Amino acid sequence: MGEREEVQNNNDIEIGVERRGPSSSSSSRSASPESRRITSSSLKEPLLLPHDAKRTNQTSQLAIIGANVCPIESLDYEIIENDLFKQDWRSRTKNKILQYVFFKWTLVLIIGLGTGFVAFFNNLAVENIAGFKLLFTNSLMLKDKYFQAFAAYAGCNMVLAIAAAGLCAYISPAAAGSGIPEVKAYLNGIDAHSILAPSTLFVKIFGSIFGVAAGFVVGKEGPMVHTGACIASLLGQGGSRKYGLTWKWLRYFKNDLDRRDLITCGAAAGVAAAFRAPVGGVLFALEEIASWWRSALLWRTFFTTAVVAVVLRTFIVFCRGGQCGLFGEGGLIMFDVNSVNPTYRIADLLAVIVLGMIGGIFGSLYNYLVDKVLRAYSIINERGPVFKILLAIIISVLTSCCSYGLPWLSKCIPCPASLGDQCPTVGRYGNFKRFQCPPNHYNDLASLFMTTNDDAIRNLFSSGFDKEFQLSTLIVFFAAIYCLGIITYGIAVPSGLFIPVILAGASYGRLVGTLLGSLSDLDVGFFALLGAASFLGGTMRMTVSLCVILLELTNSLLMLPLVMLVLLISKTVADCFNKGVYDQIVEMKGFPFLEAHAEPYMRNLTASDVVSGPLVTFSGVEKVANILYALKSTKHNGFPVIDEPPFSDAPQLCGLVLRSHLLVLLKGKKFTKQRKAIGSNMLRTFNAQDFDKAGSGKGVKLEDLDIKEEELEMYVDLHPIVNTSPYAVVETMSLAKAAVLFRQLGLRHMLVTPKMPGRPPVVGILTRHDFMSEHVLGLYPQFQPKK
Amino acid sequence: MGEREEVQNNNDIEIGVERRGPSSSSSSRSASPESRRITSSSLKEPLLLPHDAKRTNQTSQLAIIGANVCPIESLDYEIIENDLFKQDWRSRTKNKILQYVFFKWTLVLIIGLGTGFVAFFNNLAVENIAGFKLLFTNSLMLKDKYFQAFAAYAGCNMVLAIAAAGLCAYISPAAAGSGIPEVKAYLNGIDAHSILAPSTLFVKIFGSIFGVAAGFVVGKEGPMVHTGACIASLLGQGGSRKYGLTWKWLRYFKNDLDRRDLITCGAAAGVAAAFRAPVGGVLFALEEIASWWRSALLWRTFFTTAVVAVVLRTFIVFCRGGQCGLFGEGGLIMFDVNSVNPTYRIADLLAVIVLGMIGGIFGSLYNYLVDKVLRAYSIINERGPVFKILLAIIISVLTSCCSYGLPWLSKCIPCPASLGDQCPTVGRYGNFKRFQCPPNHYNDLASLFMTTNDDAIRNLFSSGFDKEFQLSTLIVFFAAIYCLGIITYGIAVPSGLFIPVILAGASYGRLVGTLLGSLSDLDVGFFALLGAASFLGGTMRMTVSLCVILLELTNSLLMLPLVMLVLLISKTVADCFNKGVYDQIVEMKGFPFLEAHAEPYMRNLTASDVVSGPLVTFSGVEKVANILYALKSTKHNGFPVIDEPPFSDAPQLCGLVLRSHLLVLLKGKKFTKQRKAIGSNMLRTFNAQDFDKAGSGKGVKLEDLDIKEEELEMYVDLHPIVNTSPYAVVETMSLAKAAVLFRQLGLRHMLVTPKMPGRPPVVGILTRHDFMSEHVLGLYPQFQPKK
Repeated sequence: MGEREEVQNNNDIEIGVERRGPSSSSSSRSASPESRRITSSSLKEPLLLPHDAKRTNQTSQLAIIGANVCPIESLDYEIIENDLFKQDWRSRTKNKILQYVFFKWTLVLIIGLGTGFVAFFNNLAVENIAGFKLLFTNSLMLKDKYFQAFAAYAGCNMVLAIAAAGLCAYISPAAAGSGIPEVKAYLNGIDAHSILAPSTLFVKIFGSIFGVAAGFVVGKEGPMVHTGACIASLLGQGGSRKYGLTWKWLRYFKNDLDRRDLITCGAAAGVAAAFRAPVGGVLFALEEIASWWRSALLWRTFFTTAVVAVVLRTFIVFCRGGQCGLFGEGGLIMFDVNSVNPTYRIADLLAVIVLGMIGGIFGSLYNYLVDKVLRAYSIINERGPVFKILLAIIISVLTSCCSYGLPWLSKCIPCPASLGDQCPTVGRYGNFKRFQCPPNHYNDLASLFMTTNDDAIRNLFSSGFDKEFQLSTLIVFFAAIYCLGIITYGIAVPSGLFIPVILAGASYGRLVGTLLGSLSDLDVGFFALLGAASFLGGTMRMTVSLCVILLELTNSLLMLPLVMLVLLISKTVADCFNKGVYDQIVEMKGFPFLEAHAEPYMRNLTASDVVSGPLVTFSGVEKVANILYALKSTKHNGFPVIDEPPFSDAPQLCGLVLRSHLLVLLKGKKFTKQRKAIGSNMLRTFNAQDFDKAGSGKGVKLEDLDIKEEELEMYVDLHPIVNTSPYAVVETMSLAKAAVLFRQLGLRHMLVTPKMPGRPPVVGILTRHDFMSEHVLGLYPQFQPKK
Repeated sequence: MGEREEVQNNNDIEIGVERRGPSSSSSSRSASPESRRITSSSLKEPLLLPHDAKRTNQTSQLAIIGANVCPIESLDYEIIENDLFKQDWRSRTKNKILQYVFFKWTLVLIIGLGTGFVAFFNNLAVENIAGFKLLFTNSLMLKDKYFQAFAAYAGCNMVLAIAAAGLCAYISPAAAGSGIPEVKAYLNGIDAHSILAPSTLFVKIFGSIFGVAAGFVVGKEGPMVHTGACIASLLGQGGSRKYGLTWKWLRYFKNDLDRRDLITCGAAAGVAAAFRAPVGGVLFALEEIASWWRSALLWRTFFTTAVVAVVLRTFIVFCRGGQCGLFGEGGLIMFDVNSVNPTYRIADLLAVIVLGMIGGIFGSLYNYLVDKVLRAYSIINERGPVFKILLAIIISVLTSCCSYGLPWLSKCIPCPASLGDQCPTVGRYGNFKRFQCPPNHYNDLASLFMTTNDDAIRNLFSSGFDKEFQLSTLIVFFAAIYCLGIITYGIAVPSGLFIPVILAGASYGRLVGTLLGSLSDLDVGFFALLGAASFLGGTMRMTVSLCVILLELTNSLLMLPLVMLVLLISKTVADCFNKGVYDQIVEMKGFPFLEAHAEPYMRNLTASDVVSGPLVTFSGVEKVANILYALKSTKHNGFPVIDEPPFSDAPQLCGLVLRSHLLVLLKGKKFTKQRKAIGSNMLRTFNAQDFDKAGSGKGVKLEDLDIKEEELEMYVDLHPIVNTSPYAVVETMSLAKAAVLFRQLGLRHMLVTPKMPGRPPVVGILTRHDFMSEHVLGLYPQFQPKK
C-alpha cells in the first residue's frame, strides 16, 4: 500500500491515465462542455471533486494489475512552437546540426555495442552457471546418488530463483516479466517511469541470468529487448545523475521524439542480440514494438543491429579459443537445419495447414491462460516482496520436479549403433542423455528436460534421426512445457515468452513430423521448426518478423514458403479468438495504448462528446497565485492560454502552455508587479534548453518551488512559453477522425475549438485517455459491442 | 504539341501541381491573403489571371521532362465526413463489413496470383525468345559465318527493340522506364492518370519482354513492380469499363485509401515475383515504394508475396518436365553462392570497406549521369513516336556492337582440364563460351556478353574457378555495362535498373576479389555479390530490403554481416553526393512528391505565408450559376463553404466541398427556386455510392453537365455533401508543423483558419503544391540554400 500512497501524493504525475477532472457519464453528457468552463481567475474552490478521487483510485487499481505500480505519463511528440523555441531555432548553425547528427549516430553505435556486449555477457553467464549445475547433477547421477542429484539440482535452481525474484521484488519490480509490452507501450507514448530506469536495467540483466540459469521455462529474448531499450533510454536521457553517469553532450536529445528513435533502435538491437538475427531485429521492432516508423529509422536500426551482429561475432570468435569456460557451441542460439530436403509433396502441405491450425488454437488458448494466470498472480504479488519470492520458489520447485521427475517415466532406448561415442552423452551437450539408463542406452525425455532450454530446442530441431524421440516423449514434453510456460510467466522474474513458445511448438511439430513418417520427404527437424513457427504465430501474431527471425535462426531459406504459410494460417486462426499476447498484457497492465485505428463506433461520436471538464485556462499574463493553484489542484499537463483585453481586442486563443514549462517559469521567478507583457525581456533571461524535457521522473517538481507570499499576487508573462500553434480540431469532427490526427502525430494534447464563432475560443482538450475505449464506452454504454 | 494542348483544355484536372491562382512572390507577400478573398457571389470576371496561365505552362513543362505528359491529380486519404457519409455509415451492417474484409483479401489473393502468372509468362517468353536468338547466332558462328552471325544477332535485337519501342511510343508512353518512380509517386498521393492504366499494363508486359529479349542492358524487375501495381490498380478501380472488364463487387474499394493498400500489395508482389524474394518484396515496398505504412498492410503484403512465391514455384515445378521450351534452369534468377567459406579475415573487411566506397562513388556518379542522359533524351523523345523508335534503334545497334564486338578483343583461354565436357560450351548455358575460339579454348568476355543478363550475373557470381575471368575482361565488361546502362535507361522501352546495376557491381566486385587473390579465403563469386550489393546501395540507397533481396537471391545467410556492412558504407558515401536514383527520377518528372520531413527553413515560415489566393468560397445554399462559374474558371478541387445569415447567426465555416462531389450534385439537378436548405430531402435522392471516388480519369466531367439556362438562377443545397470537419490549422502555425500534419494524414486540402476572431472563418487552403520547395523558395528566395 505504501507505493500506492506515494503515487497519490505525487501531484504532478498522472496515474494510469492522463485525463482527470470529473467525468462521470451523466455530468459530461447533460451539460455542454463550455458551460462548465472555469477560468483560473474565477477559481475559489478546489477543483478536485469526489469524482476525481474516485477516478484516481480506479485507474491506480488498473495499473496495479500486473504487479507494476508506477506513475504513468504521456509522451509528447509535438514540436512545441513557442517564442523560445523559435529564437533557439533561428540561432541554430549548420555546425550545431552536424553535431546533432554526429552525436545521434554515435549514440546508436554505443547502443549497438552495449546491447551486444550485454547479450554476450548474459549468454556467457547463463551457459557457465547452468552448465556447472547440470554437470554437478550429472556427476552425482553417475555415482547412482539419484536423490542427492535431485537435491543438488532443485537446490541450485531454488537459490538462483530466489536471487532472481529477490532482485525483482526488492530493487525493481518493473523488471519482472518480458518487458516487450512495456517497451511497446513506451513507444506508443506511455512513459511508466520505472520501466526504463537504470535500476530496471541492472535487475533485468542479472535477474534474467539467474532466472534462465534456474531452469525456469523462460527465455532471455524478451528481457534482452527490454535491456536494449533501457540502455538506449539511459543514453538518451543523458545518463543517470543518481548513479553518477552523465554526459554533457547528451543534452541534444532532450525531447521525446529523439528518445523514441533511440529506444526503437535499442529494442531492435535487443532482438538482434537475442536471436543473432540483425534483419529480424529490425523487422521485429517495426512490426511489433514501434507505433511510429519512418524511413530514416529503418536505416538507423539496421545500423544498430549490424553493430550488434559484429560485436557478437567478435566475442564468439574470441571464445572459440576456450577462454570462456563452459560457453561453447551452446551459447547464443543458432539452429542449423541446413540438411533438410527442399522438395515437398501434397501431404506436406496438408501437414503444414494442420500445424498452422493447431498453432492458432493452442496459441490463442495459451494467451487466454497466460492472461488468467497473470491476473491471479498479481493478487499474490501485490502482497509484498516476500510473497513474490515465495511464488517464485514454488514454481521453481515444481519446475525442478518436472524436469527431474518426468524423465523417469520414459523408457530407456538403446543407442543407434551408427553413433558410436556420441550416444549416450553424460556431459552437457548431445541429443542422447544417459540419465538413469544402463550403458549404451539413452533417455530421450532427459535429453529435453535435463539441459538448457536452448539445447532442448537444438535437440528438437536436430535432423538425421527420425526416431530419436518417442511419440510419448514428445507428448509429455509438450504438455509439461505448455503448462509450465503458462504458470511461469507472471512470477517476479525477468521472463521471455519466446523460448517456452518455441519449445512447445517444436515438440508438437516434431510429433506431427514423426506421425507423418514416410508420407513426407521432409526431415522431422524441419517439422519442429514449422511447429515452432505455428505456435509463435498463434501467440505473438507477427508474420514477417517471425519469418525472418526463424530463417536467420535456422540459416535456411529454402523452406521460406512453408514457414510463411504456417505463420499466416496460425495468425489467422488465432485472431478469431483473441489478441496477441503482448497486446493482451499491455491491456491488462492498464496502459492507455493508442491503437493505430479508431474503433468503428467512434464515427458516431464527435470530439465534443468525450471532452470532459472543467477546463482550466490562463490569461496571457497571469497571476502567480492562480497558476500555482491550478497546478496544485489539478493534474492537468496542458492549459490553454487565452488572451483577453487589453492584450487583444476580443478573447482569442493564444495557445497551450505545459505544466512542466510553467514549473520552470515559476522557478525562474521573472514576476512583475503590474499586469504587463514582458516577453522580449524574458527571452533574454531564459533559453530554450531550460525548458528541455527532462528524463522520466526528473525535472522541476511542484515541491521544488519556493514562492513567497508577496510573489503570489504578482504577475507572470506566459507568452514566451506558450505553444502558439497547438493542433486543434473542430468540435463537430467525429471522434474517429480526431483519433487519427491524435494517433498519427503522436500528440499529448489536442484542443477542441467551437464550430460557431462568438463562443470562447476553446471548448476543451482531448488527451490520450479520451480515446480509450473504456472511457468512451463508459460515457456511451449504448455502443458497447453486443456479446 | 497536341498532347500539351489537350492537357490545357482539360479543365477539371490539374497539371503538374495542384495549386493555381496568381502566386507571384510580390503579390502574395504584400497583401494579406484575405484582402484578396473573393466569394463566388461577387464574381464577375474570370479568375484566371495571366499569372495563372504562366504557371500552367511552367508546370506542364516540368511534367514533359521525362517524356511523360500526363495530367496529375492529388489523391485524398481524408475521410470525407459529410451527411451522406454519416447516413451511409449508420446503415452499415456487420455483414457488409465482413463482406468488405472478405473482398479485400480476395483481391489481394488475385493480385498475387496475377502478378505471379505474369512474372512467369514474362520469364518464359524472354528465355525462349532470347534463347532462340542466341542459339541461332551460335550456330552461324560454329560454321565460321561471323559476319552473318552478327547480322542475325543485331537484326534480331533491332526487330525486338523496334517492337518494344513501338508499343511504348504509340500505345502507352507512360510504360517506358522503370515504373518504380511512378508507383512511388502514386503511393505518395500523386495520380498521373495513364500511369496505372490498362494500356500501360499491356505495354509494360510485352514491352518488357521484347526489351529484355532484345539484349538491352535493362532488367525486368522495375517493370515487374509497375506491372504488379497496374494489376492492383485495375482490380482496385473495379476493372476497366473501356476494355469490358468490370466487377460489380469491386465498388467496395472506391476510395483512395483502399486503393493505396492494394497498389502497395501489387508493388510488393512485383518485387517478390521479379526476384523470387517474398520477404524482400514486402521490405522493398516498405522501404522504398510506400509513403504510408501500417501494421495491417505488412500482413497483407506478406500474404500477397507468399501467394506469388507459391505460384512461381508451381510453374517452375511444372516446367521441370521440359514443357516450357528453352525455359530451363535459366528462368527466374536465383544465384546460389552456397559454397562460400564463411570465415573472413581482416583483409576481407578492408576489401569490403573499399568495395562499399567504390560502390558509393560509382553509384552517385551513375545517378548523376542517368539524370543528365534522361534530360537529354526527353528532348529527343518529345519530338514524337518516330524519334523514340529511332533512339531505341541506335541504342540497340550500339549494344549489339558492344556485345558482339568486344569479345573479339579478349584472348582465348585454354579450358581447365578438370572440367571435361563443360568447357567450352556452345549452347545457351555454361560459363565457358567458345565464341570464335579454337576447340578446347573459351572466350571469357563472350561468356558475359553473348548471353542473357540473368546468365551473365550467374556467371559472375559463380564460385569455384577463381581465374575464370581475366582482369582485363572484367574491366572491359564493367566499363561497357556501366556506360550502356546509363545510355539505355531513358529510351522508350520498359527498363529496370536492377540488372544493369547488379551486372556492373558484380563485375567490379569480382575484379576486387581476383586482385585480392590468396589474401582472402573468400570466394571470388562472393566478392561479386558484395560488389553488386555496394553498387545497389550506391544507386538505390536502400539497406534492409536490398540486404534481404540479396540474401533471398543467393540463398545464403552466412555472409549477412558483410552484406550489411557494404550496404551501409556505400549508402553513406553516396548520400554525400546526391539522392537515390528513384527519388531523382521522381523529382525530374516533376511529380510534387511530399517528403516525409519538412525542410528546416519551413520552420521560419507560417502557414499563411504560402497561402496564395484568390480563395473561392461558396455559401451553404448556393446559386447554380456561381458554382458552375467557379468550376469553369478555376482548377480548384476543394471549396470552403461558409454559412451566412439566415442559415447561421454570423458567418461560420460549414466545411469543405470537393469539385468531384459538386459535379455529381449538379448532374443530379436537385435544384430549388428559393434559397433554402433541403438537406434531408436530398439525402433520400442520393446515396453515398453516387459520390464514391471514380477511377483515375473517370467520374463526372464538367463537359458532361447539361445545365439549362433557367436552372442557372436556381439554388442548390450543398450541406449534404460538405465535409463538415476538414482538418485545419491556424495561420500562425509554422509551415513545417503544418507540413507534418498534411503529410502524416495524406491530405489533399488543409484549411487555414485565422488567429484573431472576427475575421472570415477561412483565410486560405493549403494543398500539396504549397509545401513544394520550388513553390516556397520561389516566394521566399532568401531561404534558398547557399551553394
